[in-house]
Amino acid sequence: MQLTLYTDYSLRVLLYLGLLPERTATITEIAEAYGISRNHLVKVVHNLSIHDFIQTTRGRGGGICLARAPEEINIGDVVRHTEVNFDLVECFNRSQNTCPIAVACILKGALYEAQRAFMAVLDKSTLADVLENADWLRKTLRVEGELAS
Amino acid sequence: MQLTLYTDYSLRVLLYLGLLPERTATITEIAEAYGISRNHLVKVVHNLSIHDFIQTTRGRGGGICLARAPEEINIGDVVRHTEVNFDLVECFNRSQNTCPIAVACILKGALYEAQRAFMAVLDKSTLADVLENADWLRKTLRVEGELAS
Repeated sequence: MQLTLYTDYSLRVLLYLGLLPERTATITEIAEAYGISRNHLVKVVHNLSIHDFIQTTRGRGGGICLARAPEEINIGDVVRHTEVNFDLVECFNRSQNTCPIAVACILKGALYEAQRAFMAVLDKSTLADVLENADWLRKTLRVEGELAS
Repeated sequence: MQLTLYTDYSLRVLLYLGLLPERTATITEIAEAYGISRNHLVKVVHNLSIHDFIQTTRGRGGGICLARAPEEINIGDVVRHTEVNFDLVECFNRSQNTCPIAVACILKGALYEAQRAFMAVLDKSTLADVLENADWLRKTLRVEGELAS
């Protein structure tokens, strides 16, 4: 039971950008702050941009920033857009299912309910909620307030 | 967000055995009922046996059966024993974590809460609950009542 690294990194990017309400950031800066590969983040940032979680600006002084206020970025919503496969088990995908009992399986119903409960918790949180300890996060990630070079 | 095929098949094996309170079954029979590979089931059955969900009997007339009554087999408990990785994101595993903010990350807390909510739903269900439509399941899986050959 895991979320993809893609979702993990997407959330980290949004969290980092939430610490920078007054300037843009670069992918390199975020990669260095978390000690992760810049290459991994390129696709992550592109996807977040497509789904209007972040805005990108090209050229000198350009970079990335949140496209909405942290209060308007719901964590469950982000996970739905970054986690490519929500088929908890084979039978969640009608076109790929081979299990003969899927049509009336009570277990399948319990697994659906469990997944709904999982997402319901994430739907309660916004990016603003997870930024409540922003001062500590800025210090730990060594986020500088000045404009990104 | 997926459970492993291993967990999926483990649950299917238990469900099948729950339909046979009066006889043992063979791995071949279960594999054929679900249209899945027998080889996949061998390891699944071994693991279920180690964790005392099923009993195996060797020799002529031998086979596998539940080790406890369906009411005493909790679905959450099964998933905890079959799903090898409960590290939803990297930071859930202290020894492998590289994220610098893990120690006080509110997002991590939300993800833990979501996972707990997921498991809490499964903890409410027993194998007996998912066997409530046993007659339909027997018919659909073509389960025969006589002793396995």
